[in-house]
Amino acid sequence: MMNISQRIKEVPYSAIRKLTPYAEKAKADGKKVYHLNIGAPDTKTPNEFFDAIRNTNLKTLDYAPSKGMKSLMEQTCKYYRDRGADFDPESEIIITTGASEALVFSIVAVSELGQKILTCNPFYSNYYTIFRQCGINPVTFDTTVETGYRLPNYETIRDSVTEDTAAILLSNPSNPTGAVYTEEELRRVVRVAKEKDLFIIADEVYREFIFDGKDFMSFAEIEGIEDRLILLDSVSKRFGACGARIGAILCKNKALMTEIIKLATGRLAVSTIDQIGAAELYNVDKSYFEEVNAEYQKRRDCIYEELKKIDGVKVYKPEGAFYIMPDLPIKDAEDFAMWMLTDFDDNGETVMIAPGDGFYHDSNVGKSQVRLAYVINRDDLKRAIEILGKGLEKYRQLTNQ
Amino acid sequence: MMNISQRIKEVPYSAIRKLTPYAEKAKADGKKVYHLNIGAPDTKTPNEFFDAIRNTNLKTLDYAPSKGMKSLMEQTCKYYRDRGADFDPESEIIITTGASEALVFSIVAVSELGQKILTCNPFYSNYYTIFRQCGINPVTFDTTVETGYRLPNYETIRDSVTEDTAAILLSNPSNPTGAVYTEEELRRVVRVAKEKDLFIIADEVYREFIFDGKDFMSFAEIEGIEDRLILLDSVSKRFGACGARIGAILCKNKALMTEIIKLATGRLAVSTIDQIGAAELYNVDKSYFEEVNAEYQKRRDCIYEELKKIDGVKVYKPEGAFYIMPDLPIKDAEDFAMWMLTDFDDNGETVMIAPGDGFYHDSNVGKSQVRLAYVINRDDLKRAIEILGKGLEKYRQLTNQ
Repeated sequence: MMNISQRIKEVPYSAIRKLTPYAEKAKADGKKVYHLNIGAPDTKTPNEFFDAIRNTNLKTLDYAPSKGMKSLMEQTCKYYRDRGADFDPESEIIITTGASEALVFSIVAVSELGQKILTCNPFYSNYYTIFRQCGINPVTFDTTVETGYRLPNYETIRDSVTEDTAAILLSNPSNPTGAVYTEEELRRVVRVAKEKDLFIIADEVYREFIFDGKDFMSFAEIEGIEDRLILLDSVSKRFGACGARIGAILCKNKALMTEIIKLATGRLAVSTIDQIGAAELYNVDKSYFEEVNAEYQKRRDCIYEELKKIDGVKVYKPEGAFYIMPDLPIKDAEDFAMWMLTDFDDNGETVMIAPGDGFYHDSNVGKSQVRLAYVINRDDLKRAIEILGKGLEKYRQLTNQ
Repeated sequence: MMNISQRIKEVPYSAIRKLTPYAEKAKADGKKVYHLNIGAPDTKTPNEFFDAIRNTNLKTLDYAPSKGMKSLMEQTCKYYRDRGADFDPESEIIITTGASEALVFSIVAVSELGQKILTCNPFYSNYYTIFRQCGINPVTFDTTVETGYRLPNYETIRDSVTEDTAAILLSNPSNPTGAVYTEEELRRVVRVAKEKDLFIIADEVYREFIFDGKDFMSFAEIEGIEDRLILLDSVSKRFGACGARIGAILCKNKALMTEIIKLATGRLAVSTIDQIGAAELYNVDKSYFEEVNAEYQKRRDCIYEELKKIDGVKVYKPEGAFYIMPDLPIKDAEDFAMWMLTDFDDNGETVMIAPGDGFYHDSNVGKSQVRLAYVINRDDLKRAIEILGKGLEKYRQLTNQ
């Protein structure tokens, strides 16, 4: 029978996608829209990428090896080695089309159809799409805005593991909250993973965005989990190169990597040109990271301070990434986000935000939350939050909230 | 429990992957190895691609829209319109990371976990990996070397449809056989698809490789199947740009496309640079296709004539693509392929071939077959088949076959 599958129907339309036509309409009507809804940094991509692809003298754009090009695998492993994590470029890395494909391959490799993967509420909304695509389901434990989205205690994490849970998946620094987990928090997760015998899938693609001079602790630095740790990597945020679609799986479990290579072979290869460009990105000066980091810390400070000024908003100071997930004094953030585009402006300007609900599974907490990406310059950011505050005030009056 | 999944273990290692270390060893030992094992054309990629990416003045490599960049969608639709198939660039195309991702998305959209997709034996071996990744299984009907791999009659195709079959998937021109189906054969498939109410997934990525001046008939030219036809597209073979990883889904079933966009959103975007380059590929002069086609026809003639000279080889004249799948007078083509790399050479030269078994499901017919890709120049091709013939003679003597 010719039917659109139930499994694809169960993937929700992203709230952003629903809002986009209204944002476009607002712009067509002459409004200026500040985008806080998407995590695409405005950072300039280092010239190394463009120079590399400009200077290539390829005549035939052939398939790259399925597991990745040698230079990129070596550069990526060197990056990790410089940060205290040792992966063999010969056998412990597979280049993927973004971290998204790395997650698909990891899930297929560690779970059977219908099994579960444990993650925390709120989580990166595209995880859910990928879970459904891979035939598995999420199971979650909660983190809350009141604690700045710290991980819950050991017992809570442990008790959320079901019998058919195959792995724990954690984004750190967190998309969507900006929380950066401490060594103690990581060890809590490790304790559960060992006790319940689970894989750990660590999505650390925001690891260069760590504020207040703190050190980032990767799961890869914790000993004794070499066989169960799968690290998802991406150059997208690290180098402001989202459009390059270059990710990787790093893992010391060689049996697992040998299986994953079969999936890599099945889709032939990752973009040759993007790999050539990405390999050169690793030659940027160290100051690049420092400058980007300093700028994002200032933006974090700015958005935090501005949000604090708004009446009724629950806010915290994120330690990393470029997201913040405040709770607003309203019942339905999706309705509010829509209203901001369709019915509100302040001097012809408004703001597009991502409703929090899409980042939660089996929970209604997100309905009053929004995820804000602070990926625009500070003047714009300040103005955007001012507009948000004004909109919020008017919306609450209109809706008696 | 931390287990490597059964579903990934059930994906076979490709025979090519098993043979590759032996090919590398042969080369390290000083042997020259002619590669007939992989379908990566040696065709020069048109300069349009490299010029486009060289001339881009992007500063930030941002995500492209999830469904694809406008220029590439328009160019692809124009290519199809010029060939008698009308797709709306606004709503009837989604750009994908190669035809591989197009197949993944199509399968997830039309089938539930555990369902089946009907295809013919032999089929492109990576289909199987993708089926397993998507949680479905193949069901097959046979085509045979004796008929040049023509499709079987209507009843045979119809009777191979199981109750849980969601779609028919056909590669045309065929990888691995080079068969090009006639309008009558396509209509046979359409009749079954309509009668059994199945989607048709048409992989026509070799459509520019059609020999003897024949016209290629696409499923997209057949009326009355607009709602059930999903066309998989790729620039890889069309423009000798395999490393660009640019494919597409073209489909007039808008409800289905609306669902598939959710999967596209889940992985964010396709490579920006590859899309910029690929859009310009469509500006190549028509003579490009004619020249490439003429060259491959000569290669087809060459490999066919040379294979005919070898005693005991069952051969036919493929009408398209750049593959031929002869039957050899031996029991185990994988053993023979290995032996050619490890134990044989003719004046220091040998040949790498793809054993046929990996292209079959639920059948042993492929064990005596090989897939040969004629993607090298004619002098080399002629020499490679001469070596194959000599190797075959010696191998048969040694193994009393």
